[in-house]
Amino acid sequence: MSMELPERSRRSPTSGGDGASRVPVLLPEFDLIEKLRALEGSDPAVVLGIGDDAAVLQPAPECRLASCIDTLVAGVHFPPATKPADLAYKALAVNLSDLAAMGAQPRWALLSLSLNQPDHVWVESFIAGWRELAEPLGLALVGGDTTATPGPVTLSVQLLGELPPDRALTRGGAKPGDLIAVTGTLGGAALALAQLKVGQAPEPALLRRLNRPSPRVAAGRALLALATACIDVSDGFGADLNHLLTASGVGARVAVTDLPLHSSLASLDRQRQLDLALGGGDDYELCFCFPSEVRESVERRLSEAQTPFRVVGEVTAEAGLEWIGLDGWSAPTGYAHFDDA
Amino acid sequence: MSMELPERSRRSPTSGGDGASRVPVLLPEFDLIEKLRALEGSDPAVVLGIGDDAAVLQPAPECRLASCIDTLVAGVHFPPATKPADLAYKALAVNLSDLAAMGAQPRWALLSLSLNQPDHVWVESFIAGWRELAEPLGLALVGGDTTATPGPVTLSVQLLGELPPDRALTRGGAKPGDLIAVTGTLGGAALALAQLKVGQAPEPALLRRLNRPSPRVAAGRALLALATACIDVSDGFGADLNHLLTASGVGARVAVTDLPLHSSLASLDRQRQLDLALGGGDDYELCFCFPSEVRESVERRLSEAQTPFRVVGEVTAEAGLEWIGLDGWSAPTGYAHFDDA
Repeated sequence: MSMELPERSRRSPTSGGDGASRVPVLLPEFDLIEKLRALEGSDPAVVLGIGDDAAVLQPAPECRLASCIDTLVAGVHFPPATKPADLAYKALAVNLSDLAAMGAQPRWALLSLSLNQPDHVWVESFIAGWRELAEPLGLALVGGDTTATPGPVTLSVQLLGELPPDRALTRGGAKPGDLIAVTGTLGGAALALAQLKVGQAPEPALLRRLNRPSPRVAAGRALLALATACIDVSDGFGADLNHLLTASGVGARVAVTDLPLHSSLASLDRQRQLDLALGGGDDYELCFCFPSEVRESVERRLSEAQTPFRVVGEVTAEAGLEWIGLDGWSAPTGYAHFDDA
Repeated sequence: MSMELPERSRRSPTSGGDGASRVPVLLPEFDLIEKLRALEGSDPAVVLGIGDDAAVLQPAPECRLASCIDTLVAGVHFPPATKPADLAYKALAVNLSDLAAMGAQPRWALLSLSLNQPDHVWVESFIAGWRELAEPLGLALVGGDTTATPGPVTLSVQLLGELPPDRALTRGGAKPGDLIAVTGTLGGAALALAQLKVGQAPEPALLRRLNRPSPRVAAGRALLALATACIDVSDGFGADLNHLLTASGVGARVAVTDLPLHSSLASLDRQRQLDLALGGGDDYELCFCFPSEVRESVERRLSEAQTPFRVVGEVTAEAGLEWIGLDGWSAPTGYAHFDDA
């Protein structure tokens, strides 16, 4: 793979010779790669991990692969003061959420880090955050790239997951009459972000919704044979449900009063609640559709996956999204960036 | 896959309702995704391409995968004035070169674009440059991510390639007595970059070495059963050969006079020639090792792959890199950044 050191630490003079000079093969001083090797794990399907021009992987016979990439930029997707551990966790969680929405089993990761001043403390924290999420899943870091940048810290995570030969969850299979459901709760991350923006310190549990979202990997796999369509809720429930409906060529009717609001939203007025829950983003829950006939199976499988969910509406043949119970609420405007005041 | 629009163009109010309001499912105005779909190609192994949470791919039965990622940052890896077409070409070429060094057949790409002001003209140029390299290889763009950034344009390309079940070229297999060879020529890209830095306009053919390197994909595949070790020359021949030797646990003796210098270096003094050829970087040639017994096969297979190469030295059991014929030349200092004056 191409896990390279930042350029500034890569300068290793190879000779000082005259005529025929023998010099030692030098190693870079700051061995970022060696540190990141702590995230390699011990997956026997990793034929060749960190340290070559590319990783070599052995997928299970006949399986399909799910592949995604997501980039986070300091000041855009996270406050620049975010702890490296939180950043690592979240960059990985955001991508795991994409694989979860396909019903895939996460297997291997590539990481591209663009940093200003890579140092040991930063990297150690980053590794700790990554490991917290990756280790229980058996996800192996198999390669990547590190670059010195004069700009904001930027990191791209690319994941590969495995799917059975014949199926995947997509955005495109919802049918009229299907029920629409969402896992977990909505609006918590957006509230935490809103509080940070005005200098408030969110409650620890609420801040965790923003910095340490739990990607619904087990739920995605549980839904693989049951759901007709699925998407992860990253841009706000309203926008993401719209993506799903567009891909499926259908519409929907959603009961606003049934939305599973995060408990911290209880004290807010209705307008604010719905702004956060429908337009806030960063929830990393799954929004999915299924025929009512399989509702009991969905309940059983998601219970086994320890994932709460709530039915919030149904799919309609007519295009468009009908909100029931808005009560004069004006529409959310989509996922709010950190830098949008 | 998670090919998302830049956030600023993603704001699509979903409702203006009161009680029960039906609104159309809106599409974003600036459809960057639709433009990038031009790069999807028509690979039947792409079960699901651009437009979902992840791409779904069907690798050939039993094959292994080679996976790599490389990030380019404006002002670090390329002058900010680089044409988008050149940038697309080069970002792809750099990654293809990594796959070439493994002997892999490139199959699928993910692209992460962090832009300041994405516009149609920029994207059209980018697509043209990408297509020039991707189309002849049948490489499909299957997904990615686009982000608005306040920092320098940053792009990450991730590639997946296929390998046969039982082999890959790595950096680690060189044996004492093996010959060391390099494809093409060295130093041309570094000379073009040096000229740009002092305000000179490189000759078109020389500039092409910098902006449009030819990744040695066919050569890598041809070497799969013959070479004992291989690396692509991206950081400078000296540094990259050192990487290979370190990975293989061996040393080398290299005849400086045998190095295939780019023809534009002919008029330079010896010190400058070697600075550029050994320390310059950006050549994207392959440096590889093979037992002398297979030399005729290597010559035949690389001739079929239309790839010139030259033997420049041999692997030694003793660690360290011995340069023959340096004649008082002082060592190169590794790949020079664009922003290093």
